[in-house]
Amino acid sequence: MSFIPVLPDNDFPIENLPYGVFSTTNNPVKRIGVAIGDFILDLSVVKHFFTGPHLGKHQDVFSRETLNDFMSLSREAWIEGREVIQKLLSADNPELRDNEELRKKALVARGDATMHLPAEIGDYTDFYSSIHHATNVGVMFRGKDNALMPNWKWLPVGYHGRASSVVVSGTPIRRPWGQTMADGASEPTFNPSRLMDFELEMAFFVGGSPTKLGEQIPIEEADQHIFGMVLMNDWSARDIQKWEYVPLGPFLGKSFGTTISPWIVTMEALKPFLVSNPEQDPAPLPYLRHSDPYTLDINLAVTIKPDGGEVHTVCKTNFRHLYWTLKQQLAHHTVNGCNVRAGDLLGSGTVSGPNEGEYGSMLELSWKGSKEVKLGPTQTRKFLQDQDEVNLIGYCEKDGKRLGFGPCSGKLVPALKKDF
Amino acid sequence: MSFIPVLPDNDFPIENLPYGVFSTTNNPVKRIGVAIGDFILDLSVVKHFFTGPHLGKHQDVFSRETLNDFMSLSREAWIEGREVIQKLLSADNPELRDNEELRKKALVARGDATMHLPAEIGDYTDFYSSIHHATNVGVMFRGKDNALMPNWKWLPVGYHGRASSVVVSGTPIRRPWGQTMADGASEPTFNPSRLMDFELEMAFFVGGSPTKLGEQIPIEEADQHIFGMVLMNDWSARDIQKWEYVPLGPFLGKSFGTTISPWIVTMEALKPFLVSNPEQDPAPLPYLRHSDPYTLDINLAVTIKPDGGEVHTVCKTNFRHLYWTLKQQLAHHTVNGCNVRAGDLLGSGTVSGPNEGEYGSMLELSWKGSKEVKLGPTQTRKFLQDQDEVNLIGYCEKDGKRLGFGPCSGKLVPALKKDF
Repeated sequence: MSFIPVLPDNDFPIENLPYGVFSTTNNPVKRIGVAIGDFILDLSVVKHFFTGPHLGKHQDVFSRETLNDFMSLSREAWIEGREVIQKLLSADNPELRDNEELRKKALVARGDATMHLPAEIGDYTDFYSSIHHATNVGVMFRGKDNALMPNWKWLPVGYHGRASSVVVSGTPIRRPWGQTMADGASEPTFNPSRLMDFELEMAFFVGGSPTKLGEQIPIEEADQHIFGMVLMNDWSARDIQKWEYVPLGPFLGKSFGTTISPWIVTMEALKPFLVSNPEQDPAPLPYLRHSDPYTLDINLAVTIKPDGGEVHTVCKTNFRHLYWTLKQQLAHHTVNGCNVRAGDLLGSGTVSGPNEGEYGSMLELSWKGSKEVKLGPTQTRKFLQDQDEVNLIGYCEKDGKRLGFGPCSGKLVPALKKDF
Repeated sequence: MSFIPVLPDNDFPIENLPYGVFSTTNNPVKRIGVAIGDFILDLSVVKHFFTGPHLGKHQDVFSRETLNDFMSLSREAWIEGREVIQKLLSADNPELRDNEELRKKALVARGDATMHLPAEIGDYTDFYSSIHHATNVGVMFRGKDNALMPNWKWLPVGYHGRASSVVVSGTPIRRPWGQTMADGASEPTFNPSRLMDFELEMAFFVGGSPTKLGEQIPIEEADQHIFGMVLMNDWSARDIQKWEYVPLGPFLGKSFGTTISPWIVTMEALKPFLVSNPEQDPAPLPYLRHSDPYTLDINLAVTIKPDGGEVHTVCKTNFRHLYWTLKQQLAHHTVNGCNVRAGDLLGSGTVSGPNEGEYGSMLELSWKGSKEVKLGPTQTRKFLQDQDEVNLIGYCEKDGKRLGFGPCSGKLVPALKKDF
């Protein structure tokens, strides 16, 4: 229990304590904070409380403008930090509770804060780890018999994404121009994308010391390098993607914007929501095997709010549907000696469940545009329209306790008006 | 003419003046320098000479540990900087020439310097812009009739690469472990790659102010954002790549290491070597059209030095064989609103010429391992062996004047010894 009141449906009880980077009108300097109820605890103000063996010499990590330095410390340091913050906010500890001057400086109303990217993202990788999503897309484009590529069940397929265009929740996303090739046409045309989509994903931030080029992270040590998670909307222009992606993969169909939620929920906070891993058949190669549960029971949903309209839920699913675990993703990513750095972002790929209504993209919900998705009684969509505001929702719930990720939203704004 | 003697075959006459980042044993601080003959001019020592309208207020960019801040200035500032350096080093200017104390501080023997990555690379993109390379690979894997994908002549195909694993010339490259699938096998195996390759590429660094997400760089303005070029070896593990790359493109087959040369040769220095662009048929869409010459006449070669053996040239080609120009690559990259930042690195893709012996990879030189490539009288290769040292060479020559890129080398070291 915290001395700060937290309503039962608030995403940020004392069991959560996600990290983010914020600023305020009064103080435009970016600083590190932890969300608690409707407040943010400004860690730059309370850093002198971190006096333990792992953080005592590193208090300055809380005076930075990003979380990279804190994330680059050890897992022991992350755990120690969490304990200090939990103690500081707890109802039975007077240190902050009864120090009005400190409270005034250290606690900021969330409503007054502007959130920023929590880290400088060195590299962003996106996996493709939902078997339902991969199968759906495969069936649509290659038919039922060849839906999954031969490599899919042997390794977590992934690709390098664009780091510069990862933005924080609330940033408008502009409909991109690009080349598209109509079915049956002999020449491509150049126009704003007509098939705009969201992708419901989650992503994790790498932590720990940077690895050296040529070094691997064995799967047994992967959790030393998994700091925490965010929601991620991997906006996609399906028509641009379809024409460009052979043979080197998605490029401009994705790199016009990727939205993440501002609060990094740590793996420590998510521990109570670990569930047993999905059965993998064929059994993965030894370097990808681990038996400890590392699948997460996180409820996920997507809402769309049309211009001036109401919020409508178009998809409800769960992160536990992922076939490959985060540990497997990281062990695979580094098995060739690829070096990783704190602040690297690894996306899950679109999370779809097995049933209709659990699909994490319009491509699947409208089955390639072959049917309408209802947005309430009056509106329908096959793909996104300008001014649609897409929001991702993620929360865990167990024994009456709830812990959430906060908003991950973005509004699709019209393409640049240009003659080419 | 410089007062510093430069032999005719030296890569770095006063017409070149490439930028790099170096340190010395006596002074391990990374600093910015310009190569001149066998020396480096330490710009942190002479920054007070940059007093012009574009650099006078930005002298501090020369006190940084990377070139990002200098590159983020305008093209006018780059030109002004070049003029100052050229004047300072010229034979008829006494300012540095006759100031022994300053000369001692400002000039460092290249042999005493350790070179570092010239910039912090935010994002690294690799194109696929050589028609001969794309055709060769296409013929090998899909047959003559389907060699080029339908999109290839319409847009510069490219993909996001891994920025963390870009390293400077001289860094050893470790043979990666990975999954491979033998022809006709039903299950993949896990082993060190057996088909190690180099790729002869060049790359350019983005400069200028960072663009905003949603903004485009029109092709007419592309040269405001192209700072300079380096050689690049995009090491490839062909067997890993072949198994993993469908449908999202190359990933671990590339991300174990990419070597660049340490000296960035500016576009200003390369101007005399611009030649007319290749004919493009079909004509590109308007946003990719430009008529000014932006194809570069740069002689390229690859040498391999086996362990304890001699240096052998395995390939000679020219950068002018590229189908898509750097301007087209950058205009395409940003047409969807993808933002770019100074320090972003854009690779050309493997540069192959039309004839045997002009191919920029072992995959092509050995035609998928079907023939031996001679390394002198006693040794042959189909792919690379451990301890092979690969070096890329690049230079321009015209009217008896030569200008080069310096070494871009790396030694392939054995895979980690591990039981998995």
